Amino acid sequence: MLPFARVTVIGLGLIGSSIAHAVRANMPTVRVTGFDGDADVRARARAIDLCDDVADGAGAAVIDADLVMLCVPVGAIGTAAEAIADDLPADAVVSDVGGAKASVAAAMRAALPAATIVPGHPVAGTEQSGPDAGFATLFKGRWCILTPDGDTDPAAVMRVSTFWERLGAEVEIMDARHHDLVLAVTSHVPHLIAYSIVGTASDLEEVTQSEVIKFSAGGFRDFTRIAASDPTMWRDVFLNNREAVLEVLQRLTEDVTMLQRAIRWGDGDALFDLFTRTRAVRRSIIEQGQDDARPDFGRPHE
Amino acid sequence: MLPFARVTVIGLGLIGSSIAHAVRANMPTVRVTGFDGDADVRARARAIDLCDDVADGAGAAVIDADLVMLCVPVGAIGTAAEAIADDLPADAVVSDVGGAKASVAAAMRAALPAATIVPGHPVAGTEQSGPDAGFATLFKGRWCILTPDGDTDPAAVMRVSTFWERLGAEVEIMDARHHDLVLAVTSHVPHLIAYSIVGTASDLEEVTQSEVIKFSAGGFRDFTRIAASDPTMWRDVFLNNREAVLEVLQRLTEDVTMLQRAIRWGDGDALFDLFTRTRAVRRSIIEQGQDDARPDFGRPHE
Repeated sequence: MLPFARVTVIGLGLIGSSIAHAVRANMPTVRVTGFDGDADVRARARAIDLCDDVADGAGAAVIDADLVMLCVPVGAIGTAAEAIADDLPADAVVSDVGGAKASVAAAMRAALPAATIVPGHPVAGTEQSGPDAGFATLFKGRWCILTPDGDTDPAAVMRVSTFWERLGAEVEIMDARHHDLVLAVTSHVPHLIAYSIVGTASDLEEVTQSEVIKFSAGGFRDFTRIAASDPTMWRDVFLNNREAVLEVLQRLTEDVTMLQRAIRWGDGDALFDLFTRTRAVRRSIIEQGQDDARPDFGRPHE
Repeated sequence: MLPFARVTVIGLGLIGSSIAHAVRANMPTVRVTGFDGDADVRARARAIDLCDDVADGAGAAVIDADLVMLCVPVGAIGTAAEAIADDLPADAVVSDVGGAKASVAAAMRAALPAATIVPGHPVAGTEQSGPDAGFATLFKGRWCILTPDGDTDPAAVMRVSTFWERLGAEVEIMDARHHDLVLAVTSHVPHLIAYSIVGTASDLEEVTQSEVIKFSAGGFRDFTRIAASDPTMWRDVFLNNREAVLEVLQRLTEDVTMLQRAIRWGDGDALFDLFTRTRAVRRSIIEQGQDDARPDFGRPHE
């Protein structure tokens, strides 16, 4: 039982192109139509045969869809939803993959007041972007969070849920505001700090850029991977999850200040206690299959 | 031309055991003697045949060495140097692998006033620790920094340099204080922030530990790898590189505050500019062979 027969993906970056690959790999009879606002991306998607069809307009792309996935940066969701409003079939389900959910759900609802909307967020990705970055197994073993409101048709939620499970994901349903707080902790603030620390390192007068790069294997290089993620996507996430990001950032600042004080006053026990506690979190993440158990993420040492 | 014929490794954790493996792999005629203050570690080192000989005392371990590598946490370097003082051959070279160099060099000099000392720091590692964590290729393609002072015999510096090159590392020589600032940026502050963010996430009342773990693939899991590093080693690094760590941390705090303000006031351009600039740093690190070019550090997506 396929949850949908004709899936349209609007926005063919890392996530959109991975959905196209994953649908083809896991539900080969489903027809996948793609559209991207960038003509170069459309041309590239055609060249690599990403979808069954790449449409030249958003309206044409959705005209016979039963699922429309909006895979654009969260700041562009409203515009993308408006662009499909006139042509969206009445029985189609609209979903998205945005990293902030309360503001995105409001933008989709405003543009598509009569549509069946099931906002979603697959917690998966790499630092790469664009139509060539996608691959079929990106969602395998990862979690996808759906944030329907109380009025959403439960049958539609179930179909979107099944869709993600068919792509290899596990599904959790939660309130949009709670999603935004959870992701502020597990994704948004880590990205902000990574971007920030790479910026700080680049700006130091006493340490050259060449030194930062040479000696990056001491830990810094891990932060540069995260800080190589798509700038537009991340700008939009921060602007659209302001409240939760600022709250978690405030907590982090307090905790860093506590560590700063422990270092200044030579309080080794405070440092040791924290450094011991954090190891347990890593163990749980590996036990639950959310990261690679091999040392150094399995980086080659040859 | 081997730089040394009889190498003694004091401290058989990740770095010490990796040196033992690497010497055997790259200079098989060199005799490697090991010692560790922990009897369980000595027993384990014997069981896995890590060295040609595992001594039961630090003095006995160095008695015929021509290179002694102190591979203990930087807070224990002074004690380790004192323990070998009576038995160290007059012509032996003493080196170390500590992540902070000014304080460590002073501690070694105080304990061994007449010895030839070439402080060193291989910028390499994984989040694992202990005698089973070591492997022969850990230093391959990584940099090792030597911080001799102006009085050090240049021939000894050259021999230690050749030793590291034979293990696959590239060598750079710099002033100890400069090393401590460079590493504060590329290693110490990234570790402190990673430890801190994992602690902050664990302490939030509104987000459960289970949620933090499930949704860690959004970026958080990368920080947990770094925050799983050895607590004793890292406590000692922070207590022994106080000044540089606090200076870089202050810079980072200012930069994070700037980003916080940009988010609060909706200044998307400031965010976008930084997020674009940081991508170039990642590119350079990959071009110079200091990280894996594959998406997501090559993590499997199956």
